[in-house]
Amino acid sequence: MSIQNIANSARSASIRLSGTESDIKNQALQSIYKALQGNKEKIITANKIDLERAENENLSKPLLKRLKFDEDKISTVCNGIESLIKLPEPVGKTLYSKELDKELELYKVTCPIGVIGVIFESRPDALVQISTLCLKSGNAVLLKGGKEALETNKVLAEIISKSSEKVGIPQGWLNLLETRDDVRKMLDLNEYIDLIIPRGSNQFVKYIISNTSIPVLGHAAGICHVYVDADADIEMAMKIVVDSKCQYVAVCNALETLLVHKDIASKFLPNLKSELDRRNVEIRGCERTQKIINCNPATEDDWGTEYLDYILSIRIVDDLDKAIEHINTYGSGHTDSIVTRNRTTAAKFMDLVDSADVFLNCSTRFSDGYRYGLGAEVGISTNKIHTRGPVGMEGLLIYKWKLVGNGQIVNDYSRPDGRKFTHKLLNKEFSL
Amino acid sequence: MSIQNIANSARSASIRLSGTESDIKNQALQSIYKALQGNKEKIITANKIDLERAENENLSKPLLKRLKFDEDKISTVCNGIESLIKLPEPVGKTLYSKELDKELELYKVTCPIGVIGVIFESRPDALVQISTLCLKSGNAVLLKGGKEALETNKVLAEIISKSSEKVGIPQGWLNLLETRDDVRKMLDLNEYIDLIIPRGSNQFVKYIISNTSIPVLGHAAGICHVYVDADADIEMAMKIVVDSKCQYVAVCNALETLLVHKDIASKFLPNLKSELDRRNVEIRGCERTQKIINCNPATEDDWGTEYLDYILSIRIVDDLDKAIEHINTYGSGHTDSIVTRNRTTAAKFMDLVDSADVFLNCSTRFSDGYRYGLGAEVGISTNKIHTRGPVGMEGLLIYKWKLVGNGQIVNDYSRPDGRKFTHKLLNKEFSL
Repeated sequence: MSIQNIANSARSASIRLSGTESDIKNQALQSIYKALQGNKEKIITANKIDLERAENENLSKPLLKRLKFDEDKISTVCNGIESLIKLPEPVGKTLYSKELDKELELYKVTCPIGVIGVIFESRPDALVQISTLCLKSGNAVLLKGGKEALETNKVLAEIISKSSEKVGIPQGWLNLLETRDDVRKMLDLNEYIDLIIPRGSNQFVKYIISNTSIPVLGHAAGICHVYVDADADIEMAMKIVVDSKCQYVAVCNALETLLVHKDIASKFLPNLKSELDRRNVEIRGCERTQKIINCNPATEDDWGTEYLDYILSIRIVDDLDKAIEHINTYGSGHTDSIVTRNRTTAAKFMDLVDSADVFLNCSTRFSDGYRYGLGAEVGISTNKIHTRGPVGMEGLLIYKWKLVGNGQIVNDYSRPDGRKFTHKLLNKEFSL
Repeated sequence: MSIQNIANSARSASIRLSGTESDIKNQALQSIYKALQGNKEKIITANKIDLERAENENLSKPLLKRLKFDEDKISTVCNGIESLIKLPEPVGKTLYSKELDKELELYKVTCPIGVIGVIFESRPDALVQISTLCLKSGNAVLLKGGKEALETNKVLAEIISKSSEKVGIPQGWLNLLETRDDVRKMLDLNEYIDLIIPRGSNQFVKYIISNTSIPVLGHAAGICHVYVDADADIEMAMKIVVDSKCQYVAVCNALETLLVHKDIASKFLPNLKSELDRRNVEIRGCERTQKIINCNPATEDDWGTEYLDYILSIRIVDDLDKAIEHINTYGSGHTDSIVTRNRTTAAKFMDLVDSADVFLNCSTRFSDGYRYGLGAEVGISTNKIHTRGPVGMEGLLIYKWKLVGNGQIVNDYSRPDGRKFTHKLLNKEFSL
């Protein structure tokens, strides 16, 4: 089948899936769970083929680790499916209801977005997570995984579609694409595909964003800041900076640039330097920073760089406004934290820093769907519309307006002496 | 100034505007109201220049009517500003709050999107409406009106920016672009502009959508359907079809294609034909329709055409599924209505028709921000993300996550014996 035909049939399946009962969807999730458990050997065998080929091709150790899909990983994704079953039904929730007139009632009701295109790199667990999230939220899905994981992905996609379709999920709701050329074609199919979710490196996400007119849910970079204000508790600031930078350096919510108020810099930076030295963090400082501590010079490029490594750039700023300006100029709209005892300063920072997540007195590493308690994480978004920051299931949902009348026509409301709208808020679930 | 500089300074203004107090914004709206009232003559004089030039260039009557901006139109937009002042403050509303742990509280708080680009055709009232909506919601705006209205728009933009900046709204929040070339350049500035709202003809909106990677809020076409089911009340169906088609033919929520269940067609169509004949509506019917009433033949093209005129295409369908399939194939995802007494049939129609507005037993013409009681209408959206159907002020808003801690770091939660998240829902407004 051509990609266009696959996408078209996914769209048909998405329509039927949008009307599928909660029970059936949960039974299907149960059935996927059992099928994954019952086919462990088949999955692990397929994964071994991928792993062997990847080793022969000298894939890096971290990539091999991501590619590995063993018994532990199967348990983890199965636990995820169990939690998903327990989540309340996301489709058909009445968000808002209003009487427009007697026997003319308006309801704003959640529904699936339609067809989601997901592109991810070498982790096969992403295939299971995202396809089961799509199923629970009633969306059809086109998946393209990294070519290193092709054998594992094929087996997983087959298990998931067969076991779910067996209990009544519309055929064609899940489709695995296999080549890069398929992805290129998918990016043009805005008639059939409603949302693209790319998971992977920044470079990869940037490529996707600039090559499609389909809306993209994701983030290209995480250039996160901590601003240590003049009124900061210095010990607290130290803990927060070290955690934000070092707790896990390779992730998008890790600290990349530290901003320090000029009045506290000479007190704060020397102690910070010893802490960071102990952890082998390279410091690249602005000219003023270099006068206080011994470090490499930061260039203009450093302010716009996501290191994802044991490197920290530091800039001393004159005041809060300069800190905000720096973040809004060089940041990526991801996560930025202020350390201060002054609540007025904090409020201004949180209002004017134009980022998805703005924190007071805590580590940037908290910006994450699991830590936020969202139930399931679809991704992290630096978009300015639809969803922002860690995105739970609501990122895969939209709403429709349902208006229930009894023969009303607009002409009766358009004459000067015509009927008047009552526009009374109801507090009523949609039902017919 | 280059468009890029204008957009960049709009972005700076948008940051300051996002933190501007409700009182100041309402004072600015009041100040705009007074300035419009106090400069009536200046506005009308400028409009006369536009009108004279347009008459000389033989602009069509409906376009001249739209272009005219007289005392009545000034009153209307001023009434709009008064209602806007009365609306509750949309920015800084807590949508959701959660305790992640003791003294670690998460808030999801509404905020402006940032910089909105609005492109509209000949109606100068659109300039006033959309710029005041942007102001109330804290967004900066780049406006481009039709060249026919250039003199009027220049005067209006000057009045609005001067009178608002006088009371403390950041300079540069409102900018008028003057040439088509400016628009082309604006469509490339996804670094500075967060959302484009095009108002105007379908062709125009289609052009915008396919020439920018900035998200677009709008609708390219309104191919709306009424489906008269076998279980319909025939008199009700008649009223609804006539109103949906004839109440105002030139608008996006007017009926374009009527679908009729085969079992009711021979009873329904002859009477409908006399009603439509009286109103000079041309009927284009499918083969089965042509066997029941005398009408022109409909071609495949008719099913995908938005007439915006006294023309109706009619197709007889075998059942509900065929009706749903027709709408999801040829419709534009705008508004579709079913007429039936059968609630199960209605529920299926409303679930499976993939449109922004799905109606039971009422006219398609109800899908409109004013009739929905949204307070203010930003536009109508057929997007599948962010907003759908008639869009009120929430279309100009997004949220940010504010996390308030007391020194917490992620490392303390990552150890096996570490702290546990409480994830307790709060019911608390954000405040520091």
